[in-house]
Amino acid sequence: MSLTDSSPLEVAKAASISSRNLAILPTQARNDALTAIHGALQEAKDTILAANAKDLELAKKAAEDGELSQSVLKRLDLGKTGKWEDMLQGILDVRDLEDPVNKVTLRTRLDDGLELERFTCPIGVLLIIFEARPEVIANIASLAIKSGNAAILKGNCSLAHLQYPKTHADSGGKETTLSFRAISTTISNALTNTLVPNASIQLVTARDIIASLLDLDRQIDLVIPRGSNELVRYIKNNTRIPVLGHADGLCSIYIHKDADLEMALKILIDAKLGYPAACNAVETLLVDEAALSSILPSVASALLGKGVSLRCDSESKRALSNVIPANEATILQDATEEDFTTEFLAPILAIKTIPTPPDASPSTSCSLAIAHINAHSSKHTDAILTSSSEIANQFQSGVDSACVFWNTSTRMADGMRFGFGTEVGISTNKIHARGPVGLEGLMIYKYRINGCGQVAGDYGEGGKKWKHERLSVDR
Amino acid sequence: MSLTDSSPLEVAKAASISSRNLAILPTQARNDALTAIHGALQEAKDTILAANAKDLELAKKAAEDGELSQSVLKRLDLGKTGKWEDMLQGILDVRDLEDPVNKVTLRTRLDDGLELERFTCPIGVLLIIFEARPEVIANIASLAIKSGNAAILKGNCSLAHLQYPKTHADSGGKETTLSFRAISTTISNALTNTLVPNASIQLVTARDIIASLLDLDRQIDLVIPRGSNELVRYIKNNTRIPVLGHADGLCSIYIHKDADLEMALKILIDAKLGYPAACNAVETLLVDEAALSSILPSVASALLGKGVSLRCDSESKRALSNVIPANEATILQDATEEDFTTEFLAPILAIKTIPTPPDASPSTSCSLAIAHINAHSSKHTDAILTSSSEIANQFQSGVDSACVFWNTSTRMADGMRFGFGTEVGISTNKIHARGPVGLEGLMIYKYRINGCGQVAGDYGEGGKKWKHERLSVDR
Repeated sequence: MSLTDSSPLEVAKAASISSRNLAILPTQARNDALTAIHGALQEAKDTILAANAKDLELAKKAAEDGELSQSVLKRLDLGKTGKWEDMLQGILDVRDLEDPVNKVTLRTRLDDGLELERFTCPIGVLLIIFEARPEVIANIASLAIKSGNAAILKGNCSLAHLQYPKTHADSGGKETTLSFRAISTTISNALTNTLVPNASIQLVTARDIIASLLDLDRQIDLVIPRGSNELVRYIKNNTRIPVLGHADGLCSIYIHKDADLEMALKILIDAKLGYPAACNAVETLLVDEAALSSILPSVASALLGKGVSLRCDSESKRALSNVIPANEATILQDATEEDFTTEFLAPILAIKTIPTPPDASPSTSCSLAIAHINAHSSKHTDAILTSSSEIANQFQSGVDSACVFWNTSTRMADGMRFGFGTEVGISTNKIHARGPVGLEGLMIYKYRINGCGQVAGDYGEGGKKWKHERLSVDR
Repeated sequence: MSLTDSSPLEVAKAASISSRNLAILPTQARNDALTAIHGALQEAKDTILAANAKDLELAKKAAEDGELSQSVLKRLDLGKTGKWEDMLQGILDVRDLEDPVNKVTLRTRLDDGLELERFTCPIGVLLIIFEARPEVIANIASLAIKSGNAAILKGNCSLAHLQYPKTHADSGGKETTLSFRAISTTISNALTNTLVPNASIQLVTARDIIASLLDLDRQIDLVIPRGSNELVRYIKNNTRIPVLGHADGLCSIYIHKDADLEMALKILIDAKLGYPAACNAVETLLVDEAALSSILPSVASALLGKGVSLRCDSESKRALSNVIPANEATILQDATEEDFTTEFLAPILAIKTIPTPPDASPSTSCSLAIAHINAHSSKHTDAILTSSSEIANQFQSGVDSACVFWNTSTRMADGMRFGFGTEVGISTNKIHARGPVGLEGLMIYKYRINGCGQVAGDYGEGGKKWKHERLSVDR
């Protein structure tokens, strides 16, 4: 790993060359590097936490002056209970995952002595853009090395930073926090004694380097932005390199008429209040008209009681006004159309009624809920609460989102919870990788044919026939 | 299928809605639609071929006037021996492939009664842009319906057409050949009696519609351009929608010193002359210095004898001048640096010598060949000729291309030859799908969790522990 202020092209070329050497290292060499990083960080704990404490001091001043948000401040703190230990454990967890490189996923006998094989390989060079969390460096270094990809990291990155790199007094200068420097130096020293090339992982420091890196689509294969939706959207609009991630996380929960009330209460509280600023928090509640009086009142009361603002469409507001205590009913708000496409990231929930047409089958309401979600959601995570497996299946087949859940919280959409060890992010893309992305999302494949002189012209008009015999992928 | 001159947004919205209905149709309904299309085309054979004959007449005139190239003329001809039969057989071949929809590819028990499943689903809406081949309509309709994707097709599309939609006298008017119309109408009528929504497959006719469609990244999920490298490059530069395909096919073959001479002769002739205009034809020959006098002369003579121009670097030219007949030696050309990054698509081959440093191991030359390829190739297909499996493995691991072949022709890179039935194209992308792309490249996946009221907050600090038990994907 290196901390570098080289030019964008030099950085990208160094990454590209390193990626090719890294890609062909054996499993053990990549795992040994992770062991070395883990050991070095453990030894440097005091130095790194001291650097982080200084960063925090400066950041607190900036927050007091209103130059930094409280949430960025929180994310910077590496001394918070368990955070350091989680970061170190994460390195070992990734090390101990199955090697994703060089796995055969297809084997076909094209003809005698002519065998086709598809085998996994790293994508190449990743550009990871993130905001304040220092532990991202260790996470990404682990995932990149394990998967055989080179990574260019840029931290402390905000939208203003990308849009106006030259407007600050220190424009063109280097900037990175002391914690970033301390972690990078430690990892760099650790890698020196391993087979992993040092330039496989580079932390770039120049403030104005991102725009130039986003132009280098010949050297950089994938951009992974981790930050605000404005940051992600800006990056998507300003590069030809594929971008993996999500701008919005507009998740919804649909309560079907036969949902279990206790389950609905528990799930809504978790999904809305577990961590309201998370991308997998629920933002829209869809309620079957037939559940307006049976389920919604208790759910609404519980949420109101915990300080959640409810923005209701007219039907749900009317239903609630009739049955919940007057003091609660007065704080209900009217929803606008915009509320159903807004990611609040706050204790606010938009409520929409899904009509139950008279004489219609139960699947009709579910169809209408699916249509609402497909028209409004960000294709991240949507859940249904119902006691019918048939209705659940209709919902999970019909909703076009990365995660479609039944009787559980949208907050389950997470790489650690999915058992992926850790994640590089959650993707709302429709190609390559969708949902929580772990090691598998950092892989692509190649086709190998081993022949003994056969040529295309031998077949078809050449007289020979293809065998196309599917073979086992276990060698 | 419909032939439409609706507005771009209407077309995209119709595709989007149809895609959701198509995605949830059972296997049988999609297969039945392919049977119906096959039958209808068979019945309409005379009408369609008559329309094609009229198209050809007009095209021949245009070719005589120099307004149309001979290669476009050839591609338009549906009456060529075997072409019609291949088109019809292709529909049945695709129908009989395994259903790629709704396959479970991962199952994990997160906890008791809390199961995670990853299952395949269609990507959504495809935009396919192609040039002259009428059979593409039937191919793409089959692949799209089988994979559950809606498709918007635009034929007769050239670069000039995209860049200057308004410069022709008929600007803004509709344009499509009579064959395209005849095939579309036939497929459309066939679909009427099936469960596949008619607007799943739309052929758009307005000349200036492409630029607007390329803007609709909320409705269209993937663009697949099939045409010249300029066309593909233009499209990549003018849309935020992911593009699947390849601009260049700069393929190379490396002859290692221990290659078999007879094999080298046969493979080079197939790779260069089988179909010089194909993207999988060889453009660069890399020759181990140690093979300059043993293998290169016979290969060069054979290629020269078949009218191939050889553009040699100084070492290979010197080696050849010494040993091949004088009349052949005089027609050798000098290679420029540019020749090693040029896709000739013609009987021209650039030849470069890979040094064999004294006392170096055989793997050194192979490393240098790999470095040349990774710096110059378009990541499409590269091959090595060697009798050493170790050297072959070094090459296949080190070369960063979609297809890495040993002792066979680059022309093997093809969906039909790979046993995929047919292909939507060959991709040089580093994410999603690489190499020949069949049905699998048109799929993505969703994550389903079936729970019974568990929430994220139950775990970790909530006291419960994840089980993360890998389950069999066979239900």
